[in-house]
Amino acid sequence: MSILESISCSEDVKKLPESSLEALCGEIRSFLIESVSKTGGHLASNLGAVELTVALHRVYDTAKDRIVFDVGHQTYVHKILTGRREAFSTLRQYGGISGFPKPCEAEDDAFVAGHASNSVSVALGMAKARTLQGQAYSVAAVIGDGAMTGGLAYEGLTNAAASGEPMVVILNDNNMSIDPNVGGTASLLQKMRVRPGYFEFKRFYREAFSHTPGLYHFNHNVKEWVKSRVLPDNMLSALGMEYMGPVDGHDIRQLECVLRWAKEMQKPVLVHVITRKGKGCPYAEEHPELYHGVGPFDPETGEIQNSGACFSEAFGENLCAMAERDKKIVAITAAMASGTGLDQFAHRFPGRFVDTGIAEGHAAAFAAGMAKQGMTPVFAVYSSFLQRGFDMLIHDVSLQGLHVVFGVDRAGLVGSDGETHHGIFDLSYLGTVPGMQILCPASFAELREQMEMAISEMSGPVALRYPRGGEGEYRLASREAEQILREGSDVTLVCCGIMVNEALAAARLLEQRGVSAEIVKINLIGEKRFSLALSSLKKTGKLVAAEEVCAAGCLGSRLLSQACEEGLALKGARLLNLGKGIVAHGDRKLLMRDHGIDAGSIAKAAEELCKWKKL
Amino acid sequence: MSILESISCSEDVKKLPESSLEALCGEIRSFLIESVSKTGGHLASNLGAVELTVALHRVYDTAKDRIVFDVGHQTYVHKILTGRREAFSTLRQYGGISGFPKPCEAEDDAFVAGHASNSVSVALGMAKARTLQGQAYSVAAVIGDGAMTGGLAYEGLTNAAASGEPMVVILNDNNMSIDPNVGGTASLLQKMRVRPGYFEFKRFYREAFSHTPGLYHFNHNVKEWVKSRVLPDNMLSALGMEYMGPVDGHDIRQLECVLRWAKEMQKPVLVHVITRKGKGCPYAEEHPELYHGVGPFDPETGEIQNSGACFSEAFGENLCAMAERDKKIVAITAAMASGTGLDQFAHRFPGRFVDTGIAEGHAAAFAAGMAKQGMTPVFAVYSSFLQRGFDMLIHDVSLQGLHVVFGVDRAGLVGSDGETHHGIFDLSYLGTVPGMQILCPASFAELREQMEMAISEMSGPVALRYPRGGEGEYRLASREAEQILREGSDVTLVCCGIMVNEALAAARLLEQRGVSAEIVKINLIGEKRFSLALSSLKKTGKLVAAEEVCAAGCLGSRLLSQACEEGLALKGARLLNLGKGIVAHGDRKLLMRDHGIDAGSIAKAAEELCKWKKL
Repeated sequence: MSILESISCSEDVKKLPESSLEALCGEIRSFLIESVSKTGGHLASNLGAVELTVALHRVYDTAKDRIVFDVGHQTYVHKILTGRREAFSTLRQYGGISGFPKPCEAEDDAFVAGHASNSVSVALGMAKARTLQGQAYSVAAVIGDGAMTGGLAYEGLTNAAASGEPMVVILNDNNMSIDPNVGGTASLLQKMRVRPGYFEFKRFYREAFSHTPGLYHFNHNVKEWVKSRVLPDNMLSALGMEYMGPVDGHDIRQLECVLRWAKEMQKPVLVHVITRKGKGCPYAEEHPELYHGVGPFDPETGEIQNSGACFSEAFGENLCAMAERDKKIVAITAAMASGTGLDQFAHRFPGRFVDTGIAEGHAAAFAAGMAKQGMTPVFAVYSSFLQRGFDMLIHDVSLQGLHVVFGVDRAGLVGSDGETHHGIFDLSYLGTVPGMQILCPASFAELREQMEMAISEMSGPVALRYPRGGEGEYRLASREAEQILREGSDVTLVCCGIMVNEALAAARLLEQRGVSAEIVKINLIGEKRFSLALSSLKKTGKLVAAEEVCAAGCLGSRLLSQACEEGLALKGARLLNLGKGIVAHGDRKLLMRDHGIDAGSIAKAAEELCKWKKL
Repeated sequence: MSILESISCSEDVKKLPESSLEALCGEIRSFLIESVSKTGGHLASNLGAVELTVALHRVYDTAKDRIVFDVGHQTYVHKILTGRREAFSTLRQYGGISGFPKPCEAEDDAFVAGHASNSVSVALGMAKARTLQGQAYSVAAVIGDGAMTGGLAYEGLTNAAASGEPMVVILNDNNMSIDPNVGGTASLLQKMRVRPGYFEFKRFYREAFSHTPGLYHFNHNVKEWVKSRVLPDNMLSALGMEYMGPVDGHDIRQLECVLRWAKEMQKPVLVHVITRKGKGCPYAEEHPELYHGVGPFDPETGEIQNSGACFSEAFGENLCAMAERDKKIVAITAAMASGTGLDQFAHRFPGRFVDTGIAEGHAAAFAAGMAKQGMTPVFAVYSSFLQRGFDMLIHDVSLQGLHVVFGVDRAGLVGSDGETHHGIFDLSYLGTVPGMQILCPASFAELREQMEMAISEMSGPVALRYPRGGEGEYRLASREAEQILREGSDVTLVCCGIMVNEALAAARLLEQRGVSAEIVKINLIGEKRFSLALSSLKKTGKLVAAEEVCAAGCLGSRLLSQACEEGLALKGARLLNLGKGIVAHGDRKLLMRDHGIDAGSIAKAAEELCKWKKL
């Protein structure tokens, strides 16, 4: 039996002799590579967090203490150590374990994660609750360096520092760049000198740095800027948080000692841990960005299966072509240049490309400032992350009717990342923004056409929402707000975006069953009434609206409201959507089937509505 | 002619001899006190910003340069100097000038303001746009110390610093508390020593401090913490922003010199200006909180007209009574203790009261952490400011179904603060949050009853939305989700919250005109269908829904969608609401009339729907 097989909770990790910890970490790495190569998932960040996670379990009891992981895609090791090793073949799959912390999976997962920068706020809430209730457990937040660029982290840190609550913030810094001239570490060491652990700590610091010459590399993006300027001696200790570090994140003994020390200090402490993404796996160490979130790959060579053309890529390519002609276009990303397809733009137009770090609110307000002064900012951002910018969409962009274009990527179900990442609230929250016009391209060709409209022809705030992944059978492009994609007489199928593919398939199924379905494709959702859809409803009297969004603010309910307002009596209506909007992870096709919005479900609903005809 | 009367733009201010500036400031102060005593408005912050604003106009040309004011209630002096002095009798009134910057009023107002902490982001966008277009104007942000607690300011500052864009951030610090032991100013002065202006600057610094002994007072709330720890030598200079200050904000000559210097540095610079709220007006200096946003008062004595009982006060009182019995209740505010009626709670239960600073996102995530560990957090927050926490409502509170109670204050039209402050998007964005239940009390008694339900009886996320100001003729209380408030046969009037008063008045008007109106009062908006309202619609066949919210996600459209889904054909339906949600400032009654949601408009709409009957 391997060491790993003997472990199913923090207690088991604590019982291990120190001498076998290195071997345990080796086993965990092999398991991670083998397992993720089959299921896909977040590899590089988990390889970097092996020793840190083992050390956490040596110091804390995750069944009782509360460890709040930020973002949470780095918790595979934690899951492996807390009874979910055997479930790893189901990782991120429909019905399997999640790639993010989930309290419903195990008490060891303290809190839901998925969006960045919330961990310090949540942990502070937990620490305060503990103190008020006179309980004794410990609380820690584990936050990555990227998440430190988010304003929410700053709000959490300032509040934590001011509160004096005993809690530990562990900064997992896997892309460290310190300007050696920033004098902070020196003064830190001076403070440490009065403590008994000083000599050991000083050695850690030296080792951490001597083993990672890359640390001294300096790179002028916001994340590096924040870290190099704010971290070492400045903001954190300035805030009144005890600062400990940097600590070598791959030396368990050092980590365990410092974490224990931090926990015992009984005040807000920040432990700065230096880790290396992809650690111990040559191809992942060399290209951590490729193995951040990755599909299945060859565990020997690292060769990744090709995932095909996608909307994000098409968006980036089109934007480059447009920027070539139009010097007013500026592209903005919030730390997602590659995910949103903007890497090529960044390379070709560095002066007109801005990466704000994980700061969607700032990005939206910044874009508004640019638009006010005559530029055409295009902010490409994941649908679920733009939720962070909701107030700025209204206050900064919309009230003045500024022409900011939002490339709302990952709209709809995203599949294996699950509930925190599905882009299923956007029709509702974008629809709330005064004057916002929402374009819903259903093919690459339509995306190109609508980008022309959104960026060069329209005014005011415009959102283009497009899905994760590629196009389906529908390859055409329309400039109309609504279109009849297929004529029929029995029932009206209404949809937008790539859901049109399901509607087309459903219509064919219905035809075989003797039902004639009319498909109305909605391309632009704005202030105008859905006149074409309403006409179709007058004809058929029956509606099936199938949508990859939550029920609130969905197309179908807006259409029904308009129909009712016009005094239109329907013989039947079915709104097929994602209900209140909590949808688990898994294959998109399976999720669609399960939530009743795939072609089969659409056809079934339409057929039921039409039964009256046959009776 | 007074000096003030001779001024209508930056150029006029520049032309004045230095010797007459003090007299100008005196005239401005007299004008402010006289004018605001009649109209009401923001007094204390504007009195504190007189010299700063005059100095800004000496250095910048606001018709061309872009001065982005944060929050914006401190721009009265700016408005007075830029052609709007004579319009001041209409301040914050229906059809008059706004109490916040409005580009539609004058080119001198660079950007809309109202919500905190956005100015640095917006100014950076403007500065970047200017540079990309090869233009020459200057850009500055004027941000208050309170707004520095918002994460958005941190995102803006880190991005501004990293960008290197020439721009000036002016920190208007009107509640300065410096721990004299924080050594930053010394090292600052060391840096300054190489500059020609050093001696003068050093003198400014000494003067600023020697005249304001209160500066040294230290107070452990988050704002003070941030300032004392982050400002002087730490975060700002750490971020790579040139830091200049503190400067005495009531010495124009000093201010003008430092601002000119900062502008000429052609890089991101922060100028830290110390001002005193209420400066020059004894009662406002002594009680700046009372004269922050104030109604009409006696300009001699400062005596303020009593504004009567309000929902916020009732909320705070009820919460105190409940907290007495239930030790799990914790009250949270984001820098609005007094505005949300929590001051008494803060006094009586200091251990269970948390003021997070202007940090609504953190407050929501912090509350979620507390709820996860068994406390009952109650976050009282203005409707329009909670927009900042939209993502946390979904991600941190809702996905785990945590029992956090939101006291959504200022729901509906707020009157004279205008478009950035109206709480008219909440039904829509709260309705998007999975599992959120929205209670809509219409009287103080009902607020009390529903607070019991929300805090002690319900589970999951709950919002109580209540308006600015007091109750109307309706004084009853209900625990039902829906109720028939008045029976009728011709038309169904649907409403929630204090709009019930308009519906009652409308029903009486209709009765006089021979129309029998049934009133359905909606008290809880959740996942359940509006069964009572639907039954009423089946009976009357006609709907008038009158709401103080934007059209998207309004009660009426939800009800119509449900009616249509059930195959219900209406003979007529009118949704009376605030359309796309951009509503100017002014008396609530006038705004309601203008937007067609007052009793008269409701009666008119209902009568029109019923005409068919009489024909």
